[in-house]
Amino acid sequence: MTEDVKPPTEALLARIDSPADLRTLDREKLPQLADELRQFILNAVSRTGGHLSSNLGTVELTIALHYVFNTPRDRLVWDVGHQSYPHKILTGRRDQMATLRQYQGLSGFPRRSESEYDTFGTAHSSTSIAAALGMAVASRNLGENQGPDRRRHVAVIGDGAMSAGMAFEALNNAGVMRDVDLLVILNDNDMSISPAVGAMNHYLARTLSARPIVKARDVARQMLSVMPPVYELARKLEEHAKGMLVPATLFEELGFTYFGPIDGHDLDALIPTLQNLREISGPVFLHVITRKGQGYKLAEADPILYHGPGKFDPAEGIKAPATPPRKPTYTQVFSDWVCDMGEAEPRLVAVTPAMREGSGLVEFEQRFPTRYFDVGIAEQHAVTFAAGMACDGLVPVVAIYSTFLQRAYDQLLHDVALQNLPVVFALDRAGLVGADGATHAGVYDYAFLRCVPNMVVMAPADENECRQMLYSAVKYQRPVAVRYPRGVGPGVPVQKTFTELPLGRAEVRRQGRRIAILAFGSMVTPAMAAGEALDATVVNMRFVKPIDADLIRELAATHEAFVTVEEHVVMGGAGSACLEALAEAGLTRPVQMLGLPDRYIDHGDHALLLRLEGLDGPGIERQIRERFPDITGA
Amino acid sequence: MTEDVKPPTEALLARIDSPADLRTLDREKLPQLADELRQFILNAVSRTGGHLSSNLGTVELTIALHYVFNTPRDRLVWDVGHQSYPHKILTGRRDQMATLRQYQGLSGFPRRSESEYDTFGTAHSSTSIAAALGMAVASRNLGENQGPDRRRHVAVIGDGAMSAGMAFEALNNAGVMRDVDLLVILNDNDMSISPAVGAMNHYLARTLSARPIVKARDVARQMLSVMPPVYELARKLEEHAKGMLVPATLFEELGFTYFGPIDGHDLDALIPTLQNLREISGPVFLHVITRKGQGYKLAEADPILYHGPGKFDPAEGIKAPATPPRKPTYTQVFSDWVCDMGEAEPRLVAVTPAMREGSGLVEFEQRFPTRYFDVGIAEQHAVTFAAGMACDGLVPVVAIYSTFLQRAYDQLLHDVALQNLPVVFALDRAGLVGADGATHAGVYDYAFLRCVPNMVVMAPADENECRQMLYSAVKYQRPVAVRYPRGVGPGVPVQKTFTELPLGRAEVRRQGRRIAILAFGSMVTPAMAAGEALDATVVNMRFVKPIDADLIRELAATHEAFVTVEEHVVMGGAGSACLEALAEAGLTRPVQMLGLPDRYIDHGDHALLLRLEGLDGPGIERQIRERFPDITGA
Repeated sequence: MTEDVKPPTEALLARIDSPADLRTLDREKLPQLADELRQFILNAVSRTGGHLSSNLGTVELTIALHYVFNTPRDRLVWDVGHQSYPHKILTGRRDQMATLRQYQGLSGFPRRSESEYDTFGTAHSSTSIAAALGMAVASRNLGENQGPDRRRHVAVIGDGAMSAGMAFEALNNAGVMRDVDLLVILNDNDMSISPAVGAMNHYLARTLSARPIVKARDVARQMLSVMPPVYELARKLEEHAKGMLVPATLFEELGFTYFGPIDGHDLDALIPTLQNLREISGPVFLHVITRKGQGYKLAEADPILYHGPGKFDPAEGIKAPATPPRKPTYTQVFSDWVCDMGEAEPRLVAVTPAMREGSGLVEFEQRFPTRYFDVGIAEQHAVTFAAGMACDGLVPVVAIYSTFLQRAYDQLLHDVALQNLPVVFALDRAGLVGADGATHAGVYDYAFLRCVPNMVVMAPADENECRQMLYSAVKYQRPVAVRYPRGVGPGVPVQKTFTELPLGRAEVRRQGRRIAILAFGSMVTPAMAAGEALDATVVNMRFVKPIDADLIRELAATHEAFVTVEEHVVMGGAGSACLEALAEAGLTRPVQMLGLPDRYIDHGDHALLLRLEGLDGPGIERQIRERFPDITGA
Repeated sequence: MTEDVKPPTEALLARIDSPADLRTLDREKLPQLADELRQFILNAVSRTGGHLSSNLGTVELTIALHYVFNTPRDRLVWDVGHQSYPHKILTGRRDQMATLRQYQGLSGFPRRSESEYDTFGTAHSSTSIAAALGMAVASRNLGENQGPDRRRHVAVIGDGAMSAGMAFEALNNAGVMRDVDLLVILNDNDMSISPAVGAMNHYLARTLSARPIVKARDVARQMLSVMPPVYELARKLEEHAKGMLVPATLFEELGFTYFGPIDGHDLDALIPTLQNLREISGPVFLHVITRKGQGYKLAEADPILYHGPGKFDPAEGIKAPATPPRKPTYTQVFSDWVCDMGEAEPRLVAVTPAMREGSGLVEFEQRFPTRYFDVGIAEQHAVTFAAGMACDGLVPVVAIYSTFLQRAYDQLLHDVALQNLPVVFALDRAGLVGADGATHAGVYDYAFLRCVPNMVVMAPADENECRQMLYSAVKYQRPVAVRYPRGVGPGVPVQKTFTELPLGRAEVRRQGRRIAILAFGSMVTPAMAAGEALDATVVNMRFVKPIDADLIRELAATHEAFVTVEEHVVMGGAGSACLEALAEAGLTRPVQMLGLPDRYIDHGDHALLLRLEGLDGPGIERQIRERFPDITGA
């Protein structure tokens, strides 16, 4: 190579091992970095699977935030966190992206234990404003908010997450805290996807149609109007307090100083804006418009398809599998049931908190649009809204992930169960969930549901039982939860006809001797394998509440020991209910409780994680042999 | 009496046995009825105790609603419900008011089982909009929203309840439902009490200062502007959709048609307004200004004191007791501790979701104003906000009733415990709560907390232990809940010095023989009485998690049977944790589990309710003798 040959464009991303490296770059280099980062994400996610559209949408915003703010001293909280891949790549985890969402690899969400740049672990929606406000108060109270190096606090939240009550609660609280530094960035990207859900979404759409996007060259001028910040802001606040200033937006009504909307893919707008906002105190709100999937045409065109894809070829895009899947997922079993049941029962209605696709309600919405309710990310409302419908003669089914029902626990207890209203909870993703990890594990529901009077709690052993349990749940005419796992089951053919299961009755699946294995839900199949190997009796318990105490008494008369098996934490779970039944009957038998331990289990392949916890067939067999060597003849 | 003597003013209230009777009255009689009703409430509540200020504030609104709407066909939902006494009196329960909040008497809240006029049971805040929206959807889907007799749906919600996220979630959902009939009445009465909390409250205050109260004579004109409703509303909605109409209030931003504010004590304003609103479809919002304690000067002057008084003489008002109480409440123990601890630990901060008085934070706020946070009725935010503060070095104490922690379960699990953050939960009102009844019972917390990894769950046996547990909770530097009952304890003197309790270690209070009673929290004192009578060993377990498995193993070696006692439902509770410890150790012993049954327990005197459930000393003794006649020699 001779000296006069121009070198190829220097690769920038490979040199960025921390935001400090990023901040050494000239501003004009940043668009190139954005291109490289976008390409890197596309390559990485197409190899590992993971969230794509949301991360392509936050490339420039992430660069701008780390360029302008002094992270990790300045605190950056990513709401939900599935848009944090650019953040991970720029904060020293570029080379680990190949391990994303895999066992012992990088988490798909921010995690405090993973990096000092991950200031708050997120995954469930709408927590970021509360957390960042808490940090801002800590800075104030500990004197970190003074001087040239004063600490800043930024929450980045999507427009969907804004529909959740806790986001509103946090805005409501932050809006009166004049002496903390909090910047809330609304990453408004819902324009391109499905029809807006909820009044807030409509409001944002109206705002955008009424307000032109602020152009890069006008950003400085818009900012000047509040500079120097101290004096100008004091004036605005005084006017606010006196009610003289007519607030321009809903966020200003709630006490925030509002800026924007600006183009979230335009670094020439983002960087000066953030540089100016960094100097303003009090609760500040920046409205940023981005596009999900930005820069990858296939994802721009179908951001839902590319929201959380598996592995795919970036050049080809996501292809339908050549052969249709052999077995339906439990979600599909629910989807078929809710449509068939909707046909049979005209009063049936379905409610989802923003999980139409994930919960299997796409077809139901198409067929029964007036009986379908997507209430937004609003689990609390979803449940009490269902209670209201049940009061006046409808038959509501709330389709919700087990982990998100935690958001509506009081509403289930106080509004549904206490009034003994017939609401069916279809709990998807119960048990471990694989790549999403500990934040999404649905492994507490037996415990928090079975203590609630009037509740019925069921777990199907297979696909057909899932359908029949959902049907039975409607027939029982009381509060019922049916919890089923993520993914596929054992592959039992689903019978179209509906059969009501007798309330509180278990099913003996295998008659054996000496040991009785009481298995719940997804653990029935591996328990059967262990039971065969051990010649043990195996029971599909079906009901966690009411537990089949009669059967447990009978089995106690003919067996020497019990083993309980559940895909749920052992503490307070289904096995514990069996212990209570024995104690109540005055029976004393050795009971081995198999299930999940008292710690959080990180992401990884679902089957692998179960195996590591000894919850596959061989693991169950091994554990029983270890505990009962005399009985099992080991 | 001769004919020309004018009879005294005819008493009206005595003739009103249902809203149908009310609707036969001439409109000009209604102010007299309001006077009688107000006097009746004052007399009734001063005899039974109960909520006063809020009910005096809703007298005219209640009369107007039942006068205008066709209850019970039209659905009326009272948010929280502690303002529903006028409603109870006008709907056939006048004579039962003497039994209010007493065992087997009227509930202090609306209850579906009590009256067909109580369309939705409330007590926890901010559920009314969701429930009424559900009913409105049911009417639409079942064809009840057609014709002259079409069904109406009204939610009445206070301004305090508006700060809760689920109220926002419901507004957000309702605001896009153009084809349901929902009237939300904001009963705005916070102007007269403590300083406004949160941006929504500030916003409402600004609204009122900017908008004059609509006078009675102008009501008709204001209404005319939207009449005939169908055409006018259609026009407004179209403008809304196009973003052309600049919304006037935050509620209009969210899709509601807004009216008011009007004077909620002026029947001449209320009745024509409601008559007109009855004819309007879609989501409608009426802003009503009332005064807590209206018509009773003492309550007007101090609505907090008269918020929920015990018995008092209406002529004299509430008097301080002649002799100071002999024993402090647990709330007072917490209050003293949090001030002393705040003195010793400058990083300690206290968070309350709108329960400053109830949780015992009045003095803390006065002494440490920058370390005190009342976030409004916003339990979800309270917990995640605390998590954020814990991330950056503060030591947050969340003071919350056990029953309201149910509102923040996911935040506790996902934001605090999963990240193992040092947040202390001071759970007041754990166990049965007396007059507030089933809705407020804190009897599920052991179950829903002990399944959560990283949590420590403690229950003090007495006042001093409560203080030392709270201190220990801070020292453990991890997520800890300390749950203590409503009211007073056994009267143990509180030691000023702090002593850290060893984590997970129980305390043998009495060494006996054959039977070991494992008692939790408030049940230690009655268990001691039973233990004395039976010469049983009695253990103050102190920790529900981690349970003292070592001690349980030791006791199993020297005792024939166990009894567990807790003020909590048996299912999944502390006794269940003891069973798990025995099973894990491979030990088989008879265990009798004493605690609360698997049903909701209604209001009544706390001690009476415990006695009825066999949870006083004699009851515990009796139950043990019945279960173990051979051991106890009965």
